[in-house]
This record gives sequence, structure tokens and C-alpha cells, in this order.
Amino acid sequence: MREFEWIEWLSSRTAGLDGVSLGIGDDAAVLDQGRFDLVALDTMVQGVHFRLDFSSPFDVGWKLLASNLSDIAAMGGRCGPYLLGMSLGKDADEAFIQGFVQGLEAAAKALVPGNLSVGPIGGDTTRSPGPTILSLTLLGQSPSKTSAPDSVSRASSGAVLRSGAKPGHKVGVIGHLGGAAAGLEVLLRDAPGQDGPWANLVKAHRRPHPWCEMGELLGELGLASAMLDVSDGLAQDLGHILKASAVGARLELGAVPLMPGVKECAEALGGDALAWACGGGDDYALALTAPPEAVAQIEALAAQKGAPVAWIGVCWEPSKGMVWINKAGQRVQPGAQGYEHTFGDKST
Amino acid sequence: MREFEWIEWLSSRTAGLDGVSLGIGDDAAVLDQGRFDLVALDTMVQGVHFRLDFSSPFDVGWKLLASNLSDIAAMGGRCGPYLLGMSLGKDADEAFIQGFVQGLEAAAKALVPGNLSVGPIGGDTTRSPGPTILSLTLLGQSPSKTSAPDSVSRASSGAVLRSGAKPGHKVGVIGHLGGAAAGLEVLLRDAPGQDGPWANLVKAHRRPHPWCEMGELLGELGLASAMLDVSDGLAQDLGHILKASAVGARLELGAVPLMPGVKECAEALGGDALAWACGGGDDYALALTAPPEAVAQIEALAAQKGAPVAWIGVCWEPSKGMVWINKAGQRVQPGAQGYEHTFGDKST
Repeated sequence: MREFEWIEWLSSRTAGLDGVSLGIGDDAAVLDQGRFDLVALDTMVQGVHFRLDFSSPFDVGWKLLASNLSDIAAMGGRCGPYLLGMSLGKDADEAFIQGFVQGLEAAAKALVPGNLSVGPIGGDTTRSPGPTILSLTLLGQSPSKTSAPDSVSRASSGAVLRSGAKPGHKVGVIGHLGGAAAGLEVLLRDAPGQDGPWANLVKAHRRPHPWCEMGELLGELGLASAMLDVSDGLAQDLGHILKASAVGARLELGAVPLMPGVKECAEALGGDALAWACGGGDDYALALTAPPEAVAQIEALAAQKGAPVAWIGVCWEPSKGMVWINKAGQRVQPGAQGYEHTFGDKST
Repeated sequence: MREFEWIEWLSSRTAGLDGVSLGIGDDAAVLDQGRFDLVALDTMVQGVHFRLDFSSPFDVGWKLLASNLSDIAAMGGRCGPYLLGMSLGKDADEAFIQGFVQGLEAAAKALVPGNLSVGPIGGDTTRSPGPTILSLTLLGQSPSKTSAPDSVSRASSGAVLRSGAKPGHKVGVIGHLGGAAAGLEVLLRDAPGQDGPWANLVKAHRRPHPWCEMGELLGELGLASAMLDVSDGLAQDLGHILKASAVGARLELGAVPLMPGVKECAEALGGDALAWACGGGDDYALALTAPPEAVAQIEALAAQKGAPVAWIGVCWEPSKGMVWINKAGQRVQPGAQGYEHTFGDKST
């Protein structure tokens, strides 16, 4: 895909996006008044967040959009249009751009089907004398606040923040954990089974599947009191909810939902499945808290949508802190075995 | 500035920004409903758009924000909050971050004084194994459409687009041209006078001064029928207005407003002042079209705000094309001597 084809592609995809008054082609994009009130930005650096020997250009495009979709989903929001900052390194040739674009498109179709707002509305493309660095800014729309029960206090916008958890609220996870870290380990060791028993783990690393519809529904129905996406590891990310909400929590390590195959993979490679699940990142599961009376409704919703849901603990008074308990009833520290999900430094 | 200090700085600057419901600290920022409808993104790559032997970290922060402010100003909009994608290379140490942050802050104070919305609301910071790559996404607010005269057709949002020029409309420039290209040439040749006669040109390269207040007022008063910021060179950028508006224009090369010193600098260095002005970039002047009856009001406004304004031509039928005339009345092609304002490839 040459540069003019790239611009043509962008222009063809920007026309008619729902909620967009003017896409690519002026000094700034113009959004429909009052439509988008959420905005998130994620950057992926070649050699830090992706390697082109582990991920195809398609995978890179998929993952870049997926990581941003996950952020909006974690606000209980509906995803919107995006801007792309692309700094293309020497090995980002025409085939790279072509594959990258196909990955962006495929992720939008697969992860937010029927959402006619998700597409490019602007950005900046330039060359990089070093690695390829890709930055995506995604807009989104807060849920309305019509149906939240009294036990769920909502932000004035309707968005689900990290700060709404209360003592007594259940701690849950939508999705599976440990898959991305396991898949990366398989790739790093060039272990056999990449196309066999560990294929789903490698896929979890390459093409994460954020829970956009579930996030949006949980926001719209007002079922979650706090939510975030698990991108830096469950233990660390849950800490963010607890700190923002000024609560503690008792958490059961044995209830952490492992992606199928993670346990077997850890045994085969001599890794630690729970460390991957709690300290690894890149899983893009949703961690949430909910009042006990919302649990049955969340479970019914998850069953209907085919989303795995696990309850791993309960919030309590802040003075009791964040306590992890293993199956033997002993206190453990899963974060101590923290796992770097990047090849270099972590993003903040 | 260490990483935790950087996050502290971001958090301290995000609190209480006008129009922002929630800044840094969740999965996405939350904007006040119905407030910001414009969004632009600009990227600066070390070795392509800046060199740390030519620009200080302060200069880099200033220019990154300035280039985005200019985009919103060119829509006739009011600038809003921003998100930062920072990929820091090896030489981006604590002193770099400190200076960069000071440059961002100083640019906001100097270029949009009294605007309490311009500050950081999110982003992503990571390491780069190569050059430092900085991406900024800026939000903005379209002007209201209360007072546009009948001769100026406005977008439904109120924003000033590139597409509103009509035959008979005057073509104007707010600001001076050629300064950034001249200043870069002085630096590239390590020419004497960097702190003397060419200091203002070097400053134009390092710390451009976009015309935010003028852009916003022209939008609010409905005086410009089309507008853009001159970032890639006047000839090329005017071509964008003419194409989007489906008009041609007769343009006088002798009327192009040179920054003071550009002519003398070109003579001293053996350069071409008009090529710098028409083909050079990075000047962040505003190019606009306006109906003849708006000209006097624009001039009065510019005089009041201390903004230079020059009328360089008039729009005509599209079939007549874009024609540049020199002082002898001959047709010329200023774009033919196009000037690369980047050290490597141009951004698109």
C-alpha cells in the first residue's frame, strides 16, 4: 500500500462514520455536538510492545485498536472514531501498512460489530529513523444513567469509574487471564505447540479479545460500581480500583479465571500459571466490582453473551487492605512474582 | 524529573481543567457533555521534526503544543485539553522531560492566555529503543454560528472548513512566512548571527507562534469563509483550500508577507526568500479567504490584536486554476522551489 493509497483508504473509511460531522481532510476532525465525551490514548512501540517476528502487521493493527477499545469498554462506554499517529520505521514497508490497516478493520468488525462509529478520522503519518511507533487516540460515549440501582453511585457523566467500589461489593473478572503472558512465553522460548495445544495462548498475545459489548452493557445497565481493563496484570490493576475507591478487598487466588491451557502450558514450560494470570498483562479482561444484588443479573448477561465471569473476592474496609488468600487459606502475594509483558520498559 | 514526578505533574495539571469532568487516573478521560467537538493529532519525531542540538527540550514541548493549537485555531475553534503519547529515546533523560513539560506549559500560557481548558488529561508514556517520538492529541470547541454574514456559509458545527471559499473572496494571510525555514537554514549552516540579526528567525523555527486568538475570533465572528494553518508551505496549503472549495485563485508573489529579516538572511546565505515563504513550512500562519465586505473588519481586528494581515490575491472560477504572478506580472511557480522543512521525510 503506497502513501496515496493509504490516504485514500483513510478517506474512504472516514466518510459517513456515525457521529462524525467531518473526518479526515481538514486541520481537525469535527464531531457531532454532544456525542463523544470519552477519550483514551495507547501507544505501541516496536521492540517494546510488539516484535515483527512474533506478530504480523495484521496482529499489530488488531492489538492497537483492541487495547483502546478495551479502555472505553472499561468506562462502560460505547466506542467511537479514532486518530492514528504512525511513525514508520525502515521495515514498515507497503506490506506492513496493508496488513496493519486490515488488522484495524478486522478488529473493529469482530470486537464492536454493528458499531458504525469506529473508524479513522485523522492523524499524522511520518517516517521514523528507528522503530515503528504507533499511537491511537480513541473517542467514546459514556452510558446514559437511566437504570443504575441506588447501590451504584455513578459519575455525573454516567461513566463507570474506578472509584465506585464499596465494602461488601463483589470483585469479579470478565474474561480469562494469563493467556497473553503464556503465549508470549511460548513465543520467546520458541516452544513447540505454537500451532497446536498452545495456539489459543499465542493468539491471546497476538489478537486480544476485549469485552466491548459486556463493558457497554454493564455501563448502560448500571451493574458495575467500578471497572477497569486488566492490561498491566490483575494484582496491580485491582490495586488501582481499591485505591481510587478507598476500600480493601479479600481475594482468592484459586478463583482467578485462567485461560484454558495456561495451567498445562505453565507445567510444560516450568512457568507459574498464577503469576502469569495475576502479574502478567495484555489480557484485556475487565475487572469490576458490583453490589451483591447485581451479581445474578451480571451472570445472566454474561451467559447470554458468552462471556466468562468469575467472582474472586469481596471488598471490605480500607484498613484491612488488599489480601490474597490461596486454597490453603494462607496469605500470598501474587504481585511479588510480577511478570513483564513488554520486551523492554513498561508503559505507564 | 523522574517518572513518579512526571505522573504527579500530569495529575496536578489535570485537576480542575475547564470542560473536563475527569482527567488522568482512569481508563479514559471524561469530558463535559457537549463541550468539545474538534480533535487533531500531530506527531514529532526526533531526527525528522526536531534535533536536540538545534532545539532544547523546552522548544520541543512548545512546538508540539503550538502545532496542535494552530490546527484548532485554523478551524476557528477554541483550544481544549490534550493527551500525550511519549516514546522516550535514550537521550530523553529527566532533564529532557522537565524541559519538555515546561515548554508545554509556557506555550499554553503564552499562546492561549486565559484559556483554562488547555492541559493534559491522559496519554501513554513508554520507552523507545530509537528516537524520541512525541504525539499530541488536542481537543477543541467549534465557534458558535451566531454572527456569520450571509456571504459566509458555515459548517453545521460552526467550524471554519477549507471548503467555504467562493469566487470573488479575498485570499489573506495572518502572520509572517519564511521565518522558520530561514531559521532552520541558519542552524543547518551554523551561520553567524544566530543570537544577533537572525535570532528572530531561529526563534521562529524553535518556538512558532500560532495565531490562536485571531483564529478563534475569525471563527466566532464568522469572518473567514475558509481557513487553514500554513504548516507545509503556503503554496501547497493554499492548494488544499482551492481544491476543497472548488475554486481557483490569482495570487501575487510580491504580496506574500515575509517575516522581518528573511529577505536579508536569504541574501546573506544565498537562499531564496520567497521559496522559503511559499515552499517552506512550520510557520503556523493562518491562510484564509473572506468575502470582500469582511476585509475591513478583519483588518481592524488584526490591528487591535497586533496580528499582521496581508491580502495576497483573490479567488476566481475553478477553470482558471491557481495562478501565481510576480511583480513583473509574469506567471511563476513558487512551489517548484519547494523546501523540505523536515530533516527526513515529510509528514502527511
